[in-house]
Amino acid sequence: MVTMDRIFSYQHLCDYTNRTFLAMGCTPGDAALASKVLLSADLRGIDSHGIARLSGYWRLFEAGRINPRPHVRLVHETPSTATVDGDKGLGLVVAPKAMEIAIQKAGAVGSGWVSVRNSNHFGIAGYHAMMALPYDMIGWAMTNASALVTPTFSREKMLGTNPICVAIPAGEEPAFVADFATTTAANGKLEILQRKNEAAPLGWVQDADGQPSTDANALKKGGALLPLGGDREHGSHKGYALGSIVDIFSAVLSGASYGPWAPPFPAYVPMPTDMPGEGLGHFLGAMRIDGFRPASEFKYHMDQWIRRFHAAAPADPEQPVLVPGDPERLMEAQRTRNGIPLVDAVVADLQELGKTTGVQL
Amino acid sequence: MVTMDRIFSYQHLCDYTNRTFLAMGCTPGDAALASKVLLSADLRGIDSHGIARLSGYWRLFEAGRINPRPHVRLVHETPSTATVDGDKGLGLVVAPKAMEIAIQKAGAVGSGWVSVRNSNHFGIAGYHAMMALPYDMIGWAMTNASALVTPTFSREKMLGTNPICVAIPAGEEPAFVADFATTTAANGKLEILQRKNEAAPLGWVQDADGQPSTDANALKKGGALLPLGGDREHGSHKGYALGSIVDIFSAVLSGASYGPWAPPFPAYVPMPTDMPGEGLGHFLGAMRIDGFRPASEFKYHMDQWIRRFHAAAPADPEQPVLVPGDPERLMEAQRTRNGIPLVDAVVADLQELGKTTGVQL
Repeated sequence: MVTMDRIFSYQHLCDYTNRTFLAMGCTPGDAALASKVLLSADLRGIDSHGIARLSGYWRLFEAGRINPRPHVRLVHETPSTATVDGDKGLGLVVAPKAMEIAIQKAGAVGSGWVSVRNSNHFGIAGYHAMMALPYDMIGWAMTNASALVTPTFSREKMLGTNPICVAIPAGEEPAFVADFATTTAANGKLEILQRKNEAAPLGWVQDADGQPSTDANALKKGGALLPLGGDREHGSHKGYALGSIVDIFSAVLSGASYGPWAPPFPAYVPMPTDMPGEGLGHFLGAMRIDGFRPASEFKYHMDQWIRRFHAAAPADPEQPVLVPGDPERLMEAQRTRNGIPLVDAVVADLQELGKTTGVQL
Repeated sequence: MVTMDRIFSYQHLCDYTNRTFLAMGCTPGDAALASKVLLSADLRGIDSHGIARLSGYWRLFEAGRINPRPHVRLVHETPSTATVDGDKGLGLVVAPKAMEIAIQKAGAVGSGWVSVRNSNHFGIAGYHAMMALPYDMIGWAMTNASALVTPTFSREKMLGTNPICVAIPAGEEPAFVADFATTTAANGKLEILQRKNEAAPLGWVQDADGQPSTDANALKKGGALLPLGGDREHGSHKGYALGSIVDIFSAVLSGASYGPWAPPFPAYVPMPTDMPGEGLGHFLGAMRIDGFRPASEFKYHMDQWIRRFHAAAPADPEQPVLVPGDPERLMEAQRTRNGIPLVDAVVADLQELGKTTGVQL
């Protein structure tokens, strides 16, 4: 199967997305923010979390699961912590508002930590964590998500791909930005293999009986994604622990729906029964660097850290050692310059969406 | 090779360890604390980090790298953050003192985060993080360590096994305690394979050229431990990112020595030149549950979370699904009752140590 990519400018896709969120009923401010957050995924090369999901958000809106005019409110706080209720808003809007609270609290008392309930998918974790960087703060972002991942020793899907992002400012060097799902591989990588009709490496998925599988379609056949590590022998209990921490911080702390009760992203999947909380949950944090040592000192050493790791002896001279955030930053520079490629299926999906929204791509 | 275990009571080993730390010159309070922290590893089944390391600590003391009478002091703070200088003390003493500061700050403003420099190895991360549990707080502990681990794409050892522990209180259920190195497998597991003369699974180690290896002795031959994930295809860039976050939070934030400059644990290994900071670093944190929602509500849902995960459908009916902390808690109960087994080599090493310290096992 040949796939053709069409190239669109960032500005063109941003305008299209903005008009779509306005058609949903968002305020102009929220529509602009949601568009910027969503498209940061496309810019940074995380295509599975960007505009390819726009029609999915729309279907959640149609199903009454997204409130386009949320009253995002703080429901509990101490000087350095808070819980925010997202009022069923787009996570793309709720999460940046919660992160602003974390940054304010960090400014006042050194660090700020905000758990969010009653939200929806927030795009890439990286956008929210990186909001802390201009303030000379370290940013954190996590979210729980629909259950696609089995715990070690299980054949039952109990956790989402539950990403973690930690963004750390540097001085002259670009920031350190680690943004990753707590699974061995993201679902988007499986979709690429499906399109190419190729097998998946062992350790990415298992079948419906909980047995190792190389079938890139295993998830569609009742199987599951595996926690980072793949199996017990390769440390999957650590990936499972990480995904659990994300779930608990995002949803049990805030009062969102956790574990296998997390609301599914596809609007056609029925909501779980007996949900123990409201909507999806996020966890956002900010720590002031100068809460620990003068920012100039920290940045000097962070630059030295980054340069030393870039200079680490490579196993293959053709493949230099990277620092977390390098690939996404290079992709962002390239796509800002040259535009964002969308595969045929995504273009067709957005054109179809336009028939409902009245917004043409 | 047959190895024989001798069984010792916890109290016997604790007395022996305490007298050894007193012989080092520690105060009675510090010797008792260090013994309790060190032996918590043996109780919880993490044998590589317990009394088996006591002679290693003694040799660091002899080399002038451990100060038995440290003046542990707070050098920088905000209401929710602080940096502590460990004055070259035992990490076994410095880390709990720093964690007390984190807990105090959390009591006052909702959360507390302490970065520590100029310290030494702190035993298991779990001890320190679990200090938060009786206060209805979530505890965090991390530490950097001697460089044994290569970044993805590298053949140069740049990071320690850099563990993370997150301890989360529950209500009627035992606490959730995830305590793990950010490598695929701990060095202690390789030592077991070495004793049995068995091969290591792919993904645990690589050889000196940066090529995949199943040689359990690879590390001794110039190879390295691999970050969680093993190789790029299996997500090792995520394990590398986690180990890096631990290194930066523990050492770059505090002013300790980071990356390949982390001081080595074996006293016979020369210290790196041009060290960019002082000693090893740790990072400790505490968050009040009721900084987010009433503690009783959180604990009710945490119990439900734990019960639901225990009830997840197993792949093999003989192997139920575990919650992080289960194996260590069961081991602690069993060894508290039945005693702690030490392998011959450790017993011989401690008897040899006794000739120097005058303390008999």
